[in-house]
Amino acid sequence: METNQKHTWKSKLHEIIYEADTPEGKLFDVVLLIAILASIVLVMLESIKSFDEKYHLFLNISEWVITILFTIEYILRIITVKKPIRYILSFYGIIDLLSTIPKYLSLIFVGTHALVALRALRLLRIFRILKLVRYLGASNQLANAIKASRAKIAVFLFAVLIASVIFGTIMYLVEGEEHGFTNIPKSVYWCIVTLTTVGFGDIAPQTPLGQFIAALIMILGYGIIAVPTGIVSAEYTKATGSNSKAKISNEEQEQLKSVRLNTQCCANCMAQKHQDGAEFCHKCGCPLHHE
Amino acid sequence: METNQKHTWKSKLHEIIYEADTPEGKLFDVVLLIAILASIVLVMLESIKSFDEKYHLFLNISEWVITILFTIEYILRIITVKKPIRYILSFYGIIDLLSTIPKYLSLIFVGTHALVALRALRLLRIFRILKLVRYLGASNQLANAIKASRAKIAVFLFAVLIASVIFGTIMYLVEGEEHGFTNIPKSVYWCIVTLTTVGFGDIAPQTPLGQFIAALIMILGYGIIAVPTGIVSAEYTKATGSNSKAKISNEEQEQLKSVRLNTQCCANCMAQKHQDGAEFCHKCGCPLHHE
Amino acid sequence: METNQKHTWKSKLHEIIYEADTPEGKLFDVVLLIAILASIVLVMLESIKSFDEKYHLFLNISEWVITILFTIEYILRIITVKKPIRYILSFYGIIDLLSTIPKYLSLIFVGTHALVALRALRLLRIFRILKLVRYLGASNQLANAIKASRAKIAVFLFAVLIASVIFGTIMYLVEGEEHGFTNIPKSVYWCIVTLTTVGFGDIAPQTPLGQFIAALIMILGYGIIAVPTGIVSAEYTKATGSNSKAKISNEEQEQLKSVRLNTQCCANCMAQKHQDGAEFCHKCGCPLHHE
Amino acid sequence: METNQKHTWKSKLHEIIYEADTPEGKLFDVVLLIAILASIVLVMLESIKSFDEKYHLFLNISEWVITILFTIEYILRIITVKKPIRYILSFYGIIDLLSTIPKYLSLIFVGTHALVALRALRLLRIFRILKLVRYLGASNQLANAIKASRAKIAVFLFAVLIASVIFGTIMYLVEGEEHGFTNIPKSVYWCIVTLTTVGFGDIAPQTPLGQFIAALIMILGYGIIAVPTGIVSAEYTKATGSNSKAKISNEEQEQLKSVRLNTQCCANCMAQKHQDGAEFCHKCGCPLHHE
Repeated sequence: METNQKHTWKSKLHEIIYEADTPEGKLFDVVLLIAILASIVLVMLESIKSFDEKYHLFLNISEWVITILFTIEYILRIITVKKPIRYILSFYGIIDLLSTIPKYLSLIFVGTHALVALRALRLLRIFRILKLVRYLGASNQLANAIKASRAKIAVFLFAVLIASVIFGTIMYLVEGEEHGFTNIPKSVYWCIVTLTTVGFGDIAPQTPLGQFIAALIMILGYGIIAVPTGIVSAEYTKATGSNSKAKISNEEQEQLKSVRLNTQCCANCMAQKHQDGAEFCHKCGCPLHHE
Repeated sequence: METNQKHTWKSKLHEIIYEADTPEGKLFDVVLLIAILASIVLVMLESIKSFDEKYHLFLNISEWVITILFTIEYILRIITVKKPIRYILSFYGIIDLLSTIPKYLSLIFVGTHALVALRALRLLRIFRILKLVRYLGASNQLANAIKASRAKIAVFLFAVLIASVIFGTIMYLVEGEEHGFTNIPKSVYWCIVTLTTVGFGDIAPQTPLGQFIAALIMILGYGIIAVPTGIVSAEYTKATGSNSKAKISNEEQEQLKSVRLNTQCCANCMAQKHQDGAEFCHKCGCPLHHE
Repeated sequence: METNQKHTWKSKLHEIIYEADTPEGKLFDVVLLIAILASIVLVMLESIKSFDEKYHLFLNISEWVITILFTIEYILRIITVKKPIRYILSFYGIIDLLSTIPKYLSLIFVGTHALVALRALRLLRIFRILKLVRYLGASNQLANAIKASRAKIAVFLFAVLIASVIFGTIMYLVEGEEHGFTNIPKSVYWCIVTLTTVGFGDIAPQTPLGQFIAALIMILGYGIIAVPTGIVSAEYTKATGSNSKAKISNEEQEQLKSVRLNTQCCANCMAQKHQDGAEFCHKCGCPLHHE
Repeated sequence: METNQKHTWKSKLHEIIYEADTPEGKLFDVVLLIAILASIVLVMLESIKSFDEKYHLFLNISEWVITILFTIEYILRIITVKKPIRYILSFYGIIDLLSTIPKYLSLIFVGTHALVALRALRLLRIFRILKLVRYLGASNQLANAIKASRAKIAVFLFAVLIASVIFGTIMYLVEGEEHGFTNIPKSVYWCIVTLTTVGFGDIAPQTPLGQFIAALIMILGYGIIAVPTGIVSAEYTKATGSNSKAKISNEEQEQLKSVRLNTQCCANCMAQKHQDGAEFCHKCGCPLHHE
């Protein structure tokens, strides 16, 4: 009897922490979202020297509060999952750990600057909370279009890189060190800056020949910016259905999916995308607990 | 009898001010358009110091003339509408008020700089006059395509923002204060400047590692600029009809709409988009007055 | 008899100068093309001070040679056309005159700089020679797509301009004169530079708030760059035919047109696009002379 | 008998060097790929002065090792082909020679800087190794879309160039030498930088009129960036099939092709794209040797 109650207590917590179908689950997610955003703002404010000097104590305390909150959340996540090792070694398990420990590590490695980067990783946690996004339908089609065009865009970017290396070497020879093209890697960097139409201007060709080649690179870049756009555009047009019939049936299917799936997450194997009336996990067969 | 005449006089004015189907209504709109553009030019010229010093009196008088014109128009708009409160609290009602009062406020708050911004809001009034735009058909389809892709572009921009924060933090750690990346918010700002391929160059990475990461960011930005373009392109293709048949019927429908709708605006509830032969408002049932 | 011979001589010349179907006509066009390009190169070289100082005499003589060539061509064009006034007042007639007179004017207005601009107008003459372009089919479809999306892109650019004015005014208030935003027109200019993702960096926001607004403008610009692209893309897809059947019949029609039309140009009314076997002008009924 | 064995030995080597279907052939390609990338990295490192000074001997030795490897490969390629002259004069034959000789030439022309450029050409060799790319299907469709839109993009870029020359000349007259627009070629260069939205900012208009024209150029550039994108997008949509049926059959065909073709390369005529069970070259009829 006690085990059962404990089980219930655990599964209740599991539902709050991992799912977003109950009011408590939604509240938990919102609080977590605010905590993550607050911690990111803290990292930003801390990097502003004048602000840090004035409010160092406040920032320090806030950071500790958030770290402790994250620690509690991390422990609860481990407790409520049946296979904690699986969670700890999962992508989000590692992200959760990495976003909790920087403050503890700062006690050991005093003044270590790089811990800031770890704290920025907390942003990645937002994606978990935003699992609701997939119910929008929008990002699903978007993700599909990007996935479908990934290989093609990779081939294309590879060609851009080779062009950058060749043009970079030519510009290094033409412009030389006195005009900022101090070595080939820097020349290649300049070439990427130019091809992508970013154009910082910290390095710029000075000789007429260099400017002529630069103009060629720019027009080339202007012409080829069309390629990835065309790919995504075509793939996305296909993904959303080119004829209205297919589109309607697509939307219907999408809607059917939206109706059926919820945010439940199996306490045993952490599988998601369960149907609304499902009693057992579709992956491992363990019962899903609905309070 | 007198009431009826007054009513006629009011409804006549209403037709001139709010509608654009009669010659007087069109003239009113053109005059208002010129007044708005003139007031914007005045704001601009006033901000040029050398010009302001020479022609201060002229600018001041012109500004007063336009302010008084706007005041009269605002009062007339209130008078000719049956439910003035509704107009005053509507979007355009507030814009109209805000674009009228800056000069009066400048008498009270002498030298307040921020009033300039209020005056710039006058530009938003152009959109009301340009209600004719919707008869072009073009902007309607455009608006639909943008509306349809709004949610998807928002998801996409959100991803861009998260990428900016993560890369910005990394660049802050790599480049540091001595190379212009003085704090994380500034680094994130630089990252947005780079990802959007704007590339001011006021801040630019100096270390080889920083330039390498910057090159990655740029190529990423170059690759993902394709995404919103692809979305709008696909949505717009759908909106304008992918097969010629649907397109023709679409155009027919569009044309039918164009023929039927006019710029009349109900004096009672301010509803628009009345059909050409309509005698009564399709929202509140009040009679529409045709002279 | 003499009149007839003169007529034949004139119509022969007309064919050479205005048409490109005979070998002589093609040769004339190629020579003219080279002369135009040479004159543009001359204008460019003359503007390079160090070059002009060394080779001033050579440049001056070359310019005179080209000017005399253009003068002869202009006179021949007037002689061979039946209605010279019509030609002189036509678009290309004015361009021809303007590209001929700068050197003569330079004798009168010694050292007048602005004549250079007139000489650059010679480039516009290239378009006449390139009337062959329309046989490529490519530019025709392209031109149609651009024509179809012109109105929509205009509406869009209008919205961009209004956004630039409003954001420009805000940036002027936020950043102020000390950071380069010396007046509203300059702020608007900066805003256009940023929205179009050009980003010169000669003016750049320095205050945190200014950089925040700038980031918003950039992301906005990044998002809306998709709109004109989507429009042209959709229109072009329609223009080239969305289903393969329509495409083939389109190409057939295009080919049929290409077969039928030639570069003949009526000596009387200057109408073009005559069919290959045509004996009389389809505009004015005058006989077309085939040698 | 000996001839036959020699023949077998030669054809075995041919298979390893020119083809990628056997494990040895694949290993050879991977080793070559690494050697090419290493040689590119060496060229880059050598251009970094501080690195070159420290590790000059190491770089020199590595470069000699790679040069000797490339020499052996080049000799083997000549030996194993039946018609060596054909290989030597082929595109890849010339690239192979050019990427081998720079180090030898540096013994004769001591300190000649330009040899670096020759070494960068080695990157082009990657494309041969990556003949596998065509099995991805992706780059094939991409190449087709680019090929189909090449002529149209050329027409478009030609128009951009003419616009650049005309606007460049105008900006030269408006801004003049004192603001960086020292001559017309430089002005045209600036115009290309602006039209392509690169915007270095090393040259930027200073006068109000110049900034106004620059704003026009930028908005023009912003509007026309849509054109090549629209072209590629439309062509690519066509290439990948607009209706799902055609798409599936396309993919099937693609797959059929992938199944049938291998990387074999005829030892006699160097023809490629042989079918998997082919016994004789489809171009010259010589037997293909399968060990």
